[in-house]
Amino acid sequence: MAQNIYDQPQFFEGYSRLARSTGGLDAAPEWPVLRAMLPPMKGLRVVDLGCGYGWFCRWAQEQGAAHVLGLDLSEKMLARAREMSRDDAIGETIVYERADLEQLALSAAAFDLVYSSLALHYLKDAGRLFATVHQALVPGGRFVFSTEHPVFMAPSRQGWTQDAEGRRIWPLDRYAMEGPRVTDWLAKGVLKYHRTLATTLNLLIGAAFTIDRVEEFAPTPAQIEAQPALQEELDRPMFLLVSAKR
Amino acid sequence: MAQNIYDQPQFFEGYSRLARSTGGLDAAPEWPVLRAMLPPMKGLRVVDLGCGYGWFCRWAQEQGAAHVLGLDLSEKMLARAREMSRDDAIGETIVYERADLEQLALSAAAFDLVYSSLALHYLKDAGRLFATVHQALVPGGRFVFSTEHPVFMAPSRQGWTQDAEGRRIWPLDRYAMEGPRVTDWLAKGVLKYHRTLATTLNLLIGAAFTIDRVEEFAPTPAQIEAQPALQEELDRPMFLLVSAKR
Repeated sequence: MAQNIYDQPQFFEGYSRLARSTGGLDAAPEWPVLRAMLPPMKGLRVVDLGCGYGWFCRWAQEQGAAHVLGLDLSEKMLARAREMSRDDAIGETIVYERADLEQLALSAAAFDLVYSSLALHYLKDAGRLFATVHQALVPGGRFVFSTEHPVFMAPSRQGWTQDAEGRRIWPLDRYAMEGPRVTDWLAKGVLKYHRTLATTLNLLIGAAFTIDRVEEFAPTPAQIEAQPALQEELDRPMFLLVSAKR
Repeated sequence: MAQNIYDQPQFFEGYSRLARSTGGLDAAPEWPVLRAMLPPMKGLRVVDLGCGYGWFCRWAQEQGAAHVLGLDLSEKMLARAREMSRDDAIGETIVYERADLEQLALSAAAFDLVYSSLALHYLKDAGRLFATVHQALVPGGRFVFSTEHPVFMAPSRQGWTQDAEGRRIWPLDRYAMEGPRVTDWLAKGVLKYHRTLATTLNLLIGAAFTIDRVEEFAPTPAQIEAQPALQEELDRPMFLLVSAKR
């Protein structure tokens, strides 16, 4: 079973104060890029793997998705997601369910879109999930996800540093050494799994997906002007975004 | 026109002393990975973009390729390639020709395999070349290439450094800032073009290729034992290898 870090009080409290938790999709700088990778939602049957507060599930519903299944390992996240969703939507178009993505089962050819935002880096075995997602999609269906970029994940010490000339640099090491990475983000001992970019793509291809589009999020000039702290995202990619087709 | 750095005497002399120049394919640590991405060569019509000394062209011939076209911008490289190839092979199965990859034209559906080793990072416009390659392949034909990895290419200062704890790190910056990178490798002012990994893949997809396999070269334990200097290649990827299918 994946580490259920979101149900640890300290982590959950920290997470609930993040801009992307309180502000929803528009507070995530990579959302415009991810959204552009999505098909028109009207009439689609959608799963969100790691739905958190349900921001994407509600957006999909507003966009006319026929049915949205939001899955998360965290009871606290699911409770908040249900609270934040309209009563008449719950059970009608949106269903929130607890699921461990490490052991997920989904009905065959039951969905048009599988979506996941920043959840896959918690999984030790992405290949198993990719196979599950592939069989759950209809032919032509899409798997669109974001995950922490391996360049962000890999280092022994994840954090900016400076070179001898005072230049901001990202201290990359251990890129080819896949496996667990433990960080202290919001709480101590958060466990994620580093995979190279090649591994993620080859696992998708091995699960019979066709790679449609790959993005390494970088902020636009307008985003940097509105939020100067984003400037540093030009120096190393933080998020990997992929669209793959069954 | 691409910079013809290989015909500058200082660069050519430095290049001619590299292990991969004198020792051929087996002296390149990424060759086993690249070779594993290639189809069986028997009977294939092959182009090598940036053929250098013609090591790959001769290997393809030995493997039973029907016809091999080796293209390079450098007259010196082509002269050496012709020298090193058997007289009865030249003009029979191997043809060496001068070509600028920035302005390349190839006959339609004339090839089964287009190969390129460490040449594409000299090109400003990879998209044009990818379209040319796509139309030159038969349906089901392969484009297999290596290029410098964008993580290797991106930094303001390409070279290992150390963090405060004395750990070897690769000083990544400017990853999202695509465009020219001038380095002093073998000669001063060698001009290459940095593209993100996402851009390279999306240009291939945009040219109607299907991504088959992606590799970020890392040495095996046996390679590191035989050549301890390769250890550092585990810390950051130096080469990107791609197989794409028409």
